[in-house]
Amino acid sequence: MTAPRGRGRRPGGVDTRAAIISAARGQFAAKGYDKASIRGIAREAGVDPALVHHYFAGKAQLFAETMEVSLDPVAIVGRVFAGDPARLGWRVVETFLLVWDAPERRQTLAALLRSSMTSDEGARVLREFLSREVFGRIAAATGVPDPELRGSLAGAQMLGLAVMRYILKVPALVDVPPEVIVERLGPVLQAHLVDTPATEG
Amino acid sequence: MTAPRGRGRRPGGVDTRAAIISAARGQFAAKGYDKASIRGIAREAGVDPALVHHYFAGKAQLFAETMEVSLDPVAIVGRVFAGDPARLGWRVVETFLLVWDAPERRQTLAALLRSSMTSDEGARVLREFLSREVFGRIAAATGVPDPELRGSLAGAQMLGLAVMRYILKVPALVDVPPEVIVERLGPVLQAHLVDTPATEG
Repeated sequence: MTAPRGRGRRPGGVDTRAAIISAARGQFAAKGYDKASIRGIAREAGVDPALVHHYFAGKAQLFAETMEVSLDPVAIVGRVFAGDPARLGWRVVETFLLVWDAPERRQTLAALLRSSMTSDEGARVLREFLSREVFGRIAAATGVPDPELRGSLAGAQMLGLAVMRYILKVPALVDVPPEVIVERLGPVLQAHLVDTPATEG
Repeated sequence: MTAPRGRGRRPGGVDTRAAIISAARGQFAAKGYDKASIRGIAREAGVDPALVHHYFAGKAQLFAETMEVSLDPVAIVGRVFAGDPARLGWRVVETFLLVWDAPERRQTLAALLRSSMTSDEGARVLREFLSREVFGRIAAATGVPDPELRGSLAGAQMLGLAVMRYILKVPALVDVPPEVIVERLGPVLQAHLVDTPATEG
């Protein structure tokens, strides 16, 4: 969950790539997906636009990679699966709050989320990112039937929490300590991602 | 859940008020909360801006009333509480999908939701509307402890569903019949709003 933050301006290599992503994060957050441009991101990173195109196929891929660096889904999923399977749901909520509550990340993630919802292409990138990188991966690894549906409903609970706690700032969710949310949502995530309850109705 | 749709242009009374709200709905959906204006809404409704101010204290109140007419929370809450308390959670999900799946409402609600998330004032209005009109009311009426927290977590599950099904259009949630979502989320909403499970950890 520690994002690479190299700031070098050498015309190639890990530092340049990191500098482009860092600039992209700022531009997407400030302008929204539609209004951010490869040219503006290149200027912000102090590199030639051609170099941005050398590393990234286009704006959509750059946005996806920006989210990946900001969220680090591999670390998240690793953390969620380390430990007792009977407490997996609780670790999902705990990890989610750990990532979002970090002051240096909160504004960026809220801005990326907002940014992606106001444009169809941004929505597509976020949709594919969430399905592929986070919730689908978790649900598939737990071996439940309907992993995509189950993972998406779990995602809906957490995405709704993010919107209400960090964007709408609903007091009941802002003022509450993370561990209270973990205790209340842990069983919900466990039910979505792991348990197979008897169906009713 | 039937919104008044009077279209009269008489300078006063129910029809004028309905015409202003109908125009506001269009303007908020098309332009977003920040860019919609009382002046533009008045023009769209074919009335003088002073008449808009006569009916509504300002843009925030007009936005709240537009959401209220589009969602009709009193009818929603009435429907949720009619019937077996042991199935309340299922009726919340069913009612929510009934409201959102209606083709004439889906675009508007998605646009209002998007619109409110991109501005601080819009976010405030949506936050107050959700807390006061919908989830707080449901949670308080079920008599659980922590009604605001419980109602907000229930709200987070449903808001996240709306974002993923209607804005991000996640295939696993778009392609699934409403009754499957009702069966899966019913117990979750029941747990949030009604049950008081033994705490763990």
